[in-house]
Amino acid sequence: MNFANRIHTLRPSAIRAAGKLIRSKENCISFAAGLPSSALMPINEIREVTDRLLSEKGAVALQYGATKGYDPLLDEICKIMAKRHVHCKKEEIQITTGSQQGIFLTAMTFLNPGDTVITEKPTYLGALSSYTPFECNFRGVDADNEGMLIDELEKALEEEKNVKFVYAVPNFSNPTGKTWSVDRRKKLVQLANKYDIMIIEDNPYGEIRFSGEHVPTIKSFDTEDRVIYLGSFSKILFPGLRVGFSISNTAIANHFEVLKQGIDLQSNQFAQAQIAEYLKAYNLDEQIEQIVKVYGKKKDMMLEIIKEKFPKSIKHTNPEGGMFIWLDLPKGVDATKLLEKSIEEISVGFVPGGSFFTEPGYENTIRLNFSTVDEEEIIEGMNRLADFLTKELEK
Amino acid sequence: MNFANRIHTLRPSAIRAAGKLIRSKENCISFAAGLPSSALMPINEIREVTDRLLSEKGAVALQYGATKGYDPLLDEICKIMAKRHVHCKKEEIQITTGSQQGIFLTAMTFLNPGDTVITEKPTYLGALSSYTPFECNFRGVDADNEGMLIDELEKALEEEKNVKFVYAVPNFSNPTGKTWSVDRRKKLVQLANKYDIMIIEDNPYGEIRFSGEHVPTIKSFDTEDRVIYLGSFSKILFPGLRVGFSISNTAIANHFEVLKQGIDLQSNQFAQAQIAEYLKAYNLDEQIEQIVKVYGKKKDMMLEIIKEKFPKSIKHTNPEGGMFIWLDLPKGVDATKLLEKSIEEISVGFVPGGSFFTEPGYENTIRLNFSTVDEEEIIEGMNRLADFLTKELEK
Repeated sequence: MNFANRIHTLRPSAIRAAGKLIRSKENCISFAAGLPSSALMPINEIREVTDRLLSEKGAVALQYGATKGYDPLLDEICKIMAKRHVHCKKEEIQITTGSQQGIFLTAMTFLNPGDTVITEKPTYLGALSSYTPFECNFRGVDADNEGMLIDELEKALEEEKNVKFVYAVPNFSNPTGKTWSVDRRKKLVQLANKYDIMIIEDNPYGEIRFSGEHVPTIKSFDTEDRVIYLGSFSKILFPGLRVGFSISNTAIANHFEVLKQGIDLQSNQFAQAQIAEYLKAYNLDEQIEQIVKVYGKKKDMMLEIIKEKFPKSIKHTNPEGGMFIWLDLPKGVDATKLLEKSIEEISVGFVPGGSFFTEPGYENTIRLNFSTVDEEEIIEGMNRLADFLTKELEK
Repeated sequence: MNFANRIHTLRPSAIRAAGKLIRSKENCISFAAGLPSSALMPINEIREVTDRLLSEKGAVALQYGATKGYDPLLDEICKIMAKRHVHCKKEEIQITTGSQQGIFLTAMTFLNPGDTVITEKPTYLGALSSYTPFECNFRGVDADNEGMLIDELEKALEEEKNVKFVYAVPNFSNPTGKTWSVDRRKKLVQLANKYDIMIIEDNPYGEIRFSGEHVPTIKSFDTEDRVIYLGSFSKILFPGLRVGFSISNTAIANHFEVLKQGIDLQSNQFAQAQIAEYLKAYNLDEQIEQIVKVYGKKKDMMLEIIKEKFPKSIKHTNPEGGMFIWLDLPKGVDATKLLEKSIEEISVGFVPGGSFFTEPGYENTIRLNFSTVDEEEIIEGMNRLADFLTKELEK
């Protein structure tokens, strides 16, 4: 087969490899997932809304619609974003198949082969999946608990040619759970203006904050229309419906619309109508409160065991929201080998963190998920992991 | 904005421009649509199936699932295809967001800048939308009522460098309504083998045959795994659910899966479950019979008026299925100008055919749709058009 060059850039996903390994062992407790909790999805509510939709507007909801998106959903998104102090117009929105497709649209719109994408170290694996086929280079920038290190970012902008944008998950990032401070957000915008680049603000977890105060979006500090904001209903409502959205200036939104005609004509019209009707009939903030309450408790339980029982040589994040805790093990430890042994010996799974980096050298890191495991599993699995890691690191 | 080079290849859609013009005139009868009839969608059946799905399997159907697709739907697709004499395995299938995304995946998998795509003259506009951003060249090949002219196709394969594939809609094509004969299908496969290229067989309309016998798929003549078959539930069930699929060899299906992780992670899980449950509970062939009966009658009505009342200088196709009739007006006539005048004077709309070609010189063509208009509109609109065209062409 005479494939395109981009096919040779594709790599199998390390998360999927970990998942396969974990599923191969019966009764394994898995902290490897990246899913929201199914138990918190408002299924009765969507059932009520869906039946009404089919009885009253079936012919519209099941037919082709506008590429840009289902108009009543665009209205609802404007309202939600206004509450978050982002004032957008409908023509600035493009409905996407999850925020993943928003990332993909930024790749198609901006990347020529050889261009550079700046990401956090580590970054969302799905962003690498979107950008890699466009034959770009990656430059990772270190982050502390306030966000990217601004000096390092500016150094990268000086050194790298053809930087098109910085990709960031500023709230409770996947994989680390870290959040950017207001100051770093402002400085990122200043640097984007100075170096004439774009910012991709990917915010799927932003609503799920269990402690501290909400930090304004990077988009709210945008002075030159350089921020493309990506939102999603996957983590707060139903990931299976695949409804996300982008907010950008109108010129970019128009390019997204034309590109999307070639990608898939439009996202599922019915799912957009389901979400729109849910948002009109129910209080999204109450749904988010439920999630926050449950995830916050799970995070606390997980963190408590890490603090009390994990070897002190392991560093951890303490996320104020989202679904993940991040572990830094001592240099030289190979988390992929640890995973194999952990599954074998204690039936506990996690994701080795090396693949969230665009360069080697971080094989000593681990991502732990707390959204999909129940409380008993957290206590049992984390205690086993504490003993296991103590034994392994003290060898 | 420092956009990627591919952005400069994008052109606004001529169909959308025609649609906008038509909507601007009140009470216009439009033969410009490309939609299936909403009246024929089995809405009560999907309502029943959907409610049961939400009550019994909501947590699975609304959650993330496999990128490749919802497993019970893959089973159903294997069964449907077996009835059509294409025997495929689940690992050869990739669920796509409409067959449009199948086209897009072939672009991503095979096209480098400067590669050549061979299409029929004219071809599906959405395929051009998928392929154009990959900075490829197009070579159009003329077709008669049996399909592409094989001599011309071989000439194109001799002359063009880096041909990656032939894209074809072999049944009741959009825009012409033409169908390929068995002989042409076999010869296409022979040429693909000889010149080491792929064939993209896009078959969204194949089930909707109102006269003549079903012709075997190109895929059924495939001897070297060169055919990528694209199917869809949009024209026979619900376009708004955006459920399509590709069938290819496993190596290509695996590339599609990895690429799709970057494009949108997966298509809507709930919609896949809705279609799977519908297929298990109801008889798809009975649904198709309904569509065939109604569309066949509409096509006959439209064709009768063309034959009896249109100027004899206008050539027309006589499709055995699908949703479109194609008109060839005398050379020199500009269908775009005719459309403006037709909307203004007789409130009848259609799509000028020039944009379905990859080269200029076909501005004298028109696509007429019969699936979305009711019988009264066909009689009234086509009679008006007959008088209008008689007047215009006899000037």
